[in-house]
Amino acid sequence: MEAPSERGLCPNAMTTKYEERILEIGAQARNAARALARATTAEKNTALLAAADRIERSSGRILAANEADMKSATASGLASAMLDRLRLDFGRINAIAKSVRQVAALPDPVGSVIREWDRGDGLKFAKVRVPIGVIGIIYESRPNVTSDAASLCLKTGNAVVLRGGSESLGSNLVIAEALREGCREAGIIPDAIQIIDLTDRGAVRAMAEMDQYIDLIIPRGGKELIETVAKLARMPVIKHYDGICHIYVDRAADLAMAESIVINAKCQRPSVCNAVETLLVHRDIADAFLRSCGLALQERRVELRGDERTRAILGPGVALATEQDWRTEYLDLILSIRIVDSPEEAVEHIETYGSHHTDAIVTEDEPIAQAFLRDVDSAAVFWNASTRLNDGGEFGFGAEIGISTNRLHARGPMALEELTTYKYVVRGQGHVRG
Amino acid sequence: MEAPSERGLCPNAMTTKYEERILEIGAQARNAARALARATTAEKNTALLAAADRIERSSGRILAANEADMKSATASGLASAMLDRLRLDFGRINAIAKSVRQVAALPDPVGSVIREWDRGDGLKFAKVRVPIGVIGIIYESRPNVTSDAASLCLKTGNAVVLRGGSESLGSNLVIAEALREGCREAGIIPDAIQIIDLTDRGAVRAMAEMDQYIDLIIPRGGKELIETVAKLARMPVIKHYDGICHIYVDRAADLAMAESIVINAKCQRPSVCNAVETLLVHRDIADAFLRSCGLALQERRVELRGDERTRAILGPGVALATEQDWRTEYLDLILSIRIVDSPEEAVEHIETYGSHHTDAIVTEDEPIAQAFLRDVDSAAVFWNASTRLNDGGEFGFGAEIGISTNRLHARGPMALEELTTYKYVVRGQGHVRG
Repeated sequence: MEAPSERGLCPNAMTTKYEERILEIGAQARNAARALARATTAEKNTALLAAADRIERSSGRILAANEADMKSATASGLASAMLDRLRLDFGRINAIAKSVRQVAALPDPVGSVIREWDRGDGLKFAKVRVPIGVIGIIYESRPNVTSDAASLCLKTGNAVVLRGGSESLGSNLVIAEALREGCREAGIIPDAIQIIDLTDRGAVRAMAEMDQYIDLIIPRGGKELIETVAKLARMPVIKHYDGICHIYVDRAADLAMAESIVINAKCQRPSVCNAVETLLVHRDIADAFLRSCGLALQERRVELRGDERTRAILGPGVALATEQDWRTEYLDLILSIRIVDSPEEAVEHIETYGSHHTDAIVTEDEPIAQAFLRDVDSAAVFWNASTRLNDGGEFGFGAEIGISTNRLHARGPMALEELTTYKYVVRGQGHVRG
Repeated sequence: MEAPSERGLCPNAMTTKYEERILEIGAQARNAARALARATTAEKNTALLAAADRIERSSGRILAANEADMKSATASGLASAMLDRLRLDFGRINAIAKSVRQVAALPDPVGSVIREWDRGDGLKFAKVRVPIGVIGIIYESRPNVTSDAASLCLKTGNAVVLRGGSESLGSNLVIAEALREGCREAGIIPDAIQIIDLTDRGAVRAMAEMDQYIDLIIPRGGKELIETVAKLARMPVIKHYDGICHIYVDRAADLAMAESIVINAKCQRPSVCNAVETLLVHRDIADAFLRSCGLALQERRVELRGDERTRAILGPGVALATEQDWRTEYLDLILSIRIVDSPEEAVEHIETYGSHHTDAIVTEDEPIAQAFLRDVDSAAVFWNASTRLNDGGEFGFGAEIGISTNRLHARGPMALEELTTYKYVVRGQGHVRG
């Protein structure tokens, strides 16, 4: 039996040693960030290409580590969907290396001039992109996030502190080591890529509180993870929350176009944040549109839930949508449908129930489209296009770290530019303040 | 004597009623923000000009309310510096009205296109400035912040929730009412300007926790206020922390220019965040420069604190600077001085002890200047110009709400553009995801 004093001391002593390790990692990252900020684009690209080669050459070691991770995860009863995310094979490792090379090929935003101007008296101003500093990334099973996140941070001159799921730690460590080797080969300090090698859940809290060393945290995972990080964090957090996305089919819509957009937005990949969840239809074209589109959706095994007017058209086989349906991100082959009397009513519905993520209007009436695009307060608003196009790749950004639901700094697709901030560089000839 | 149950209930009942009032204010602001976001530039400017007229016409009522505030504040023993900030007269009221008119004259950033591009297949993208939503401003004694903050928010289409110091509540309410009247005259919903009419200190906590209604909080005041708000806030906070600003006088400096810049940066207004606190001097020109500049500073009653090498030049009358001096924002006629062996040592000192606010180099050597401008990680870096120029007005921004020490969203002078965010507007002709 333990003495009370020992029971009291033990957790403290553990916490201290544990926090020391996290603080050590943070300090190394901060130190590396200062050096990395000065690296040239050529040096960073050399490191990325060397890292991609290293990843391919380390396939055997990565697969061995991944097999060990899979064994432990299977033994501990991880769900099969999670196991599939965790699993690596030669194809997936090649895809990882290819992604790293793609990041090397993207333009480097660091040092680019956002705006420059002259005051008229010789004082010259420039607003210049610079790295953010140290970025913390907290993620779940997929080991490819290790290289995706690290390569995007490296390209933008940011040190990174990675904290993957404990079930993938072995795989993550080998991948991260390949990236660090790539840095070494290019003369970049490998400490720019840090991985939290403690599986304790308290690591997330320790990272979130370490604002002297981490400038920004990006949690990639489920809502619970994001909420935990947002609550604990002392630094800014980029959140990737729900997409309760809408398509409004106006009375002036091209109905064939509308049907094609709705089917794409619902069925192409229903499990993601930019899939449509609620369809709003103008009453004047509801009958014609829903009879055709409803059938097409049902043929694709989409479950429809409609308001009373929708059911009057599609029949009682369609379940009655409840207040809760309007607020639900199904992430599945389910679609709620409501008939509205005007574009204004559609906007009102979206502003009331939506999550300000992605919303679309289908219409040939330009003034109605313009009003919708102005009045719907979402990260991305589409006219005659599918909500599924709200994506860094589709936008032409080359790569993205996610779709931010924050309003500030990064809104919508978060790519290389959003991994930078700016500073003002001012050049004078002895200018003083009068 | 109270029964325990009553003691337990009482604060709860009060809290509930109290929180209800704050939540009511927040909900009104959110509702107004949606309407205000659609207001045209002309409508917003009409409201601002009408508000300026109202402020002038309400001078009598403003002065009466201010006199009552001054009486209470004097009775409660408010410090004389604070009383001076609180005090209004006809001149100050005219200045308030003038500021509001100046905001009306500035360009409206809302709706401007930050960037637009075409994907090549007809899908057109635009990144467009939009209001942030609802902005909370927490400030101390000066009643002019009420109109400055409200007019900048109104111009940028943001609803504002103002929480001034309790000692200035009477003055603030009359000024805010003039602004709300201006809105009414222009057909803009007056609820866009909200003022917390509760003097309880818990109002700050209630605002900071109300992230469903407030999108961004800006505390304007001392460090203690900012830290309290940052700790409590569930939404982003724009902080205005210390400026531990440096000037490095390189061996290739024009010494007369350097002296004029140092004197301006230290003496023109020593109490503000962009005044210089530490002077770094290259050893090769230290003797000549410090003998002249040191004397000039002492003539202006600046207390000098130097390292040993500085004291060897300026004599033992100069106090020895301690480690603490390098970390101190004096906000006073005090300057710490250190002699360095190289520009790299100057950068190292700034990165170790500085606050990443404003730092300057004086040199005629362009490569050395470029390295300094690149390697010093501050919101604004100056070459051959005074640190005092880090200011929204000096930058040509027309008005500023402060100088942000955040790294993200707003870094450095925070003006109209920084009171907006963006959304993506995407126009297609039936585009879907492949």
